[in-house]
Amino acid sequence: MNERMSALCTDFYELTMMQGYFVASPDSRAVFELFFRHQPFGGGYTVFAGIVPFIEEVARFRFHDDDIAFLQKQGIFKKDFTEYLKNFHFQGDIYSLAEGTIAFPNEPLVRVEGTLLEVQVIESLLLNSVNFQSLIATKTARVVNAAGGLPVLEFGLRRAQGFDGALSASRAAYVGGASATSNTLAGKLYNIPVSGTMAHSWVMSFDSELEAFQVYAKQYPDRIVLLVDTYDTLRSGIPNAIKVFRGLHGTKPSLMAIRIDSGDLEYLSKAARRMLDDAGLMEVKIFVSSDMDEWIIEHLRNANCPIDAWGVGTRMVTGWGDPALSGVYKIVARWKDGKWHPCIKLSNQPEKLTNPGMKNIMRVYGEDGQMKADLLYLEEEKEELEALILSKKPLRFNHPISDFAGFEMDDYAYTESLLVPVMIKGKPISNLPSLDDARKRCRDQMRALDATYKRLLNPHVYKVSLSDKLAQTKRALVEQHRKALGKQ
Amino acid sequence: MNERMSALCTDFYELTMMQGYFVASPDSRAVFELFFRHQPFGGGYTVFAGIVPFIEEVARFRFHDDDIAFLQKQGIFKKDFTEYLKNFHFQGDIYSLAEGTIAFPNEPLVRVEGTLLEVQVIESLLLNSVNFQSLIATKTARVVNAAGGLPVLEFGLRRAQGFDGALSASRAAYVGGASATSNTLAGKLYNIPVSGTMAHSWVMSFDSELEAFQVYAKQYPDRIVLLVDTYDTLRSGIPNAIKVFRGLHGTKPSLMAIRIDSGDLEYLSKAARRMLDDAGLMEVKIFVSSDMDEWIIEHLRNANCPIDAWGVGTRMVTGWGDPALSGVYKIVARWKDGKWHPCIKLSNQPEKLTNPGMKNIMRVYGEDGQMKADLLYLEEEKEELEALILSKKPLRFNHPISDFAGFEMDDYAYTESLLVPVMIKGKPISNLPSLDDARKRCRDQMRALDATYKRLLNPHVYKVSLSDKLAQTKRALVEQHRKALGKQ
Repeated sequence: MNERMSALCTDFYELTMMQGYFVASPDSRAVFELFFRHQPFGGGYTVFAGIVPFIEEVARFRFHDDDIAFLQKQGIFKKDFTEYLKNFHFQGDIYSLAEGTIAFPNEPLVRVEGTLLEVQVIESLLLNSVNFQSLIATKTARVVNAAGGLPVLEFGLRRAQGFDGALSASRAAYVGGASATSNTLAGKLYNIPVSGTMAHSWVMSFDSELEAFQVYAKQYPDRIVLLVDTYDTLRSGIPNAIKVFRGLHGTKPSLMAIRIDSGDLEYLSKAARRMLDDAGLMEVKIFVSSDMDEWIIEHLRNANCPIDAWGVGTRMVTGWGDPALSGVYKIVARWKDGKWHPCIKLSNQPEKLTNPGMKNIMRVYGEDGQMKADLLYLEEEKEELEALILSKKPLRFNHPISDFAGFEMDDYAYTESLLVPVMIKGKPISNLPSLDDARKRCRDQMRALDATYKRLLNPHVYKVSLSDKLAQTKRALVEQHRKALGKQ
Repeated sequence: MNERMSALCTDFYELTMMQGYFVASPDSRAVFELFFRHQPFGGGYTVFAGIVPFIEEVARFRFHDDDIAFLQKQGIFKKDFTEYLKNFHFQGDIYSLAEGTIAFPNEPLVRVEGTLLEVQVIESLLLNSVNFQSLIATKTARVVNAAGGLPVLEFGLRRAQGFDGALSASRAAYVGGASATSNTLAGKLYNIPVSGTMAHSWVMSFDSELEAFQVYAKQYPDRIVLLVDTYDTLRSGIPNAIKVFRGLHGTKPSLMAIRIDSGDLEYLSKAARRMLDDAGLMEVKIFVSSDMDEWIIEHLRNANCPIDAWGVGTRMVTGWGDPALSGVYKIVARWKDGKWHPCIKLSNQPEKLTNPGMKNIMRVYGEDGQMKADLLYLEEEKEELEALILSKKPLRFNHPISDFAGFEMDDYAYTESLLVPVMIKGKPISNLPSLDDARKRCRDQMRALDATYKRLLNPHVYKVSLSDKLAQTKRALVEQHRKALGKQ
């Protein structure tokens, strides 16, 4: 979609490693997984997003002639390698959570299998897309939850991080539950409803605020939203808005509202409601905007402010408070001597040990449709686990780092394996979910998540456990590496 | 540059207002200025960036046929207006600070003059570009200052906010003083040096760490940077790196280094230096990366850590701590009855009153070339001020909101008017500065700024004052509006 995009949109070290693999082991195959270690914003959940735009880019991931020329100028890439790059395209398999699915730390969100060369070179682009869109979908879901069903309008274009930063934020915000965007181009590209009426400059460009409101109402008689804080909200803006709304004799706009964009929103919204009601304008709604986020919205709602819709910009589209999801992409298995060997990255901190092997996530639901816990398992165990579930036998959940914790569960109603194919042999699957599917998935998942996990402050921690075989594999690998280190 | 880009990359309210102006006052002219109210990161300065990419976009800002079709579907735009949009292109004048110039709160950074319609519709794109790139240029300058002359490498692609968020962050980081980027595409598009060697996956894809290092050193014999923290930095990574460096018999790489990407960097860098020196490898450098920012770098340097280069990613390219610069774009004058009328936006908080009229900034330097203070003035005063300066008469500096503070200055050496034309009648000026010019401008401005303004903690506040005439105009407008409000 972007003419500047090419396979050069990758960290330079991917290319130096790629040439290294090309020379040392061009046919080696590997599996990488994407996961993150901490929930953003101190929250209890992450909304996964960004895979579909990534898949669209990977399908067109090519080194163009001018890209090759640029690489040759670097002086470290040999001719046979750059010739190989000329015909390179990604031919691997990619499995992923569906966009809109809720995710938790240390879960594999995306799994990529192919030659070491091809799974390595797409790393940066994958992380960029998934890290950012998941961050914004998550932030938006938090804002939407705080707004408790009232519309949240995304107004972030002017403060977003770059043009595409804005576009992809609008997309992700829609997945997370925003009702509309101010970004007209996002509206067109992603089929998101667009929203917007007037700025302070509109009011200031007329001789008086009243004239500015009157001209607007005449131009847009069906949806009249008047910005009332240019000069003085209570002494000028609202009285002028009331004059305009009362002067509409006979016309029935489908929306009449005022928007307050500055000042103390608790004080002003309550005063505005009284003034409007006293003027008999009970049907006029109150919109607010002004550095909103989930915490402010929760407070204003707890204070029973008569606010009907929320315009949220900067803090939503930049992931204010935690502007990057720290997703990483690690090798979990490599093919050698005719079979897959699980890999582990060690660390002195047990919680930073990676989970080895080609995995999937089993999400376990109760009779009430609520999520109970997630079980990470090895793909090779799939049939075994499915047989257990079919016969309603208990499932065993091992703690990810402690041998001293774990549990069995037999009161589950159904399960869902979360990683599904999105690209096979370099081709996107034909029925990739739409943006509306992703938005619906997010809403459904939110409903299946208990309120204690959605609390803004100190949320309940959702259980992510390991299957027996995965726990055993991890333990064995750690043991093996520790022994090898001890010998040095 | 981006095929998705069009004039729809604007907030929807710009278009509703635009149609309003089209109907009510199609020929009205206005002047808007972009400014911000608070320094980001609690710092003492902002590095201005983002205008050149914006000017390139504005020169191609068009409503394409499918954009018009999208607008028609919204049901509120009339045929004569959408016909007008079909031929719309920006024909106004834009004045701006040069990229790399240091800026302070409430200073006009960009000034746009044209019809109300055209100056309004480009608002969102201008704010998006300048807010984000200035934020990242500023953050990078802070990191570069903390690193005190040692190279800072920008590694942000995987955590940046979108694909273009990454590209424009790489560009802005280069303005702010980064030495290189990991984003290969940014290297190609902006001619920035690229940098990168290996990831943990490289090490994990071989049977042993030693083999991984050996293969790498053979492949890239001239620049060998080994990542030493995959298994155990001190017990495995550094001993293996030492074996490789010692085994280079006779070859003379231009760079030998290790990179540490996790753990306690003070402890590990000092231990690594000792181990390398004990092995006679004094010339091997130590690079670090791992959630670096200006605060951590300042601390590690104060602790005399033997670190030779800094890889900085997430926290630099997302503006961690303050992920949006709060630039706004306000109308400051409108043309009526044959002359310009200054406009003001009122507020109950005096510091939020806008400065009215078509302005410029005079930066005043001392004999030592250091910046002394900035004076905002009305363009109509320009000759008068220049005559004063030519005759070395004192300049009067009025406090922006208090009548009780102000000063005269006569010990200035020279002055510089900061806003210069970048686009005239819709055409970019022919000699727009290059990215290297912008980077040099930033470096020169940083040298002209006293260290007290560059302190990370509680920096000295730089003086931004008003000329006599600007202060009088502001006072008169406030008076006039207050009287009008009093009458209601």
